[in-house]
Amino acid sequence: MAGRLITFEGIDGSGKSTQIQLLEEEFNRNGVQFNTFREPGGTKLSEKIRGILLDKENIELPSTAESLLFAAARAQLTTEKIKPAFAEYEFVICDRFIDSTIAYQGYGRGLNINNLEMINNIATDGLKPDLTFILDLNPAKAGERMESEAPDRMETIGTEFFKKVREGYRQIVEQNPDRCIEINAEQTPDNVYKEIYQIILKRFEKELICS
Amino acid sequence: MAGRLITFEGIDGSGKSTQIQLLEEEFNRNGVQFNTFREPGGTKLSEKIRGILLDKENIELPSTAESLLFAAARAQLTTEKIKPAFAEYEFVICDRFIDSTIAYQGYGRGLNINNLEMINNIATDGLKPDLTFILDLNPAKAGERMESEAPDRMETIGTEFFKKVREGYRQIVEQNPDRCIEINAEQTPDNVYKEIYQIILKRFEKELICS
Repeated sequence: MAGRLITFEGIDGSGKSTQIQLLEEEFNRNGVQFNTFREPGGTKLSEKIRGILLDKENIELPSTAESLLFAAARAQLTTEKIKPAFAEYEFVICDRFIDSTIAYQGYGRGLNINNLEMINNIATDGLKPDLTFILDLNPAKAGERMESEAPDRMETIGTEFFKKVREGYRQIVEQNPDRCIEINAEQTPDNVYKEIYQIILKRFEKELICS
Repeated sequence: MAGRLITFEGIDGSGKSTQIQLLEEEFNRNGVQFNTFREPGGTKLSEKIRGILLDKENIELPSTAESLLFAAARAQLTTEKIKPAFAEYEFVICDRFIDSTIAYQGYGRGLNINNLEMINNIATDGLKPDLTFILDLNPAKAGERMESEAPDRMETIGTEFFKKVREGYRQIVEQNPDRCIEINAEQTPDNVYKEIYQIILKRFEKELICS
């Protein structure tokens, strides 16, 4: 098997988890073999790093250190989980991947985007997703959706930051028109999912028919 | 003040801590203002990372993830400690810095040296030591010295590995003849120290007279 990597991107509250869950249910119903990973967690090491990143005591973490930690978690995830999964599953789904770093640390925090791309290409040994869905949503609406949840470090940064992240994702879509598809995430979850699954069906027709 | 960065390098057991202590005592006697940091520790974040790196459970940690963790700790150390220290002290002493990564991860583990240099230049924002002592010692002798100490993850890797690291340090000296000085660490600690201090006196005559 030569697994295909599908990634879901978007600002916090854009509905990635819901969409991934709907896709997993569909794959399960149809007997499609897949595995899902979320960033930056997924391995013992990366869960520890996730703990550091989300720790409120580290709110002053310099952006460079933060992006290197994300890259370390991603290197471990890629080596230990994603690459082995390609041999076993038809599809590998990731909740966030390199584009999150470019959007959040690059466009959001203003770190040098070329540096971030270099670091992350090293971390993933050049691995790129086959298809990326970027769930686009007004940050104010995303904030409303998350109001009931406990805020963590990423979510206390404010709407201005997420506006920059959203703009970053739009740039990524522009620069990678074949790989990245922007989806209007203000629709109902079911309608968002319909759009996503139509694209998956079209893009991976061969793989899905053979499964 | 424009602090000078002096780094100490060498394989585990080469006597860096002893030499740093002797230099600190000399600086204290002479009223020279200095501060010392050790790698990868020194900040709350980097102590956490150090904990991960030395944890025996992580013995299978992929080299890329490991070097990104070192770089993250170094980014934090550089931003939070070393750069502010330059404004306050005449000398900043580091127990290990970028050369350790090049010697251990590059020459020792075989990671791409250009990649390591890129990652670490980003982490330190291009900061280079003014003077680096590389304590050179036969790994077998270094092992004897450390026999009484509890072995940690770095020390259970074996003599073959440390032979490659030693060779790496020699390459670094060859490529950076102005910055790096190789010191024969098989001498008594006092004789090693005499060599080191003579070089410091000569190199930083002006700074030491003015203090």
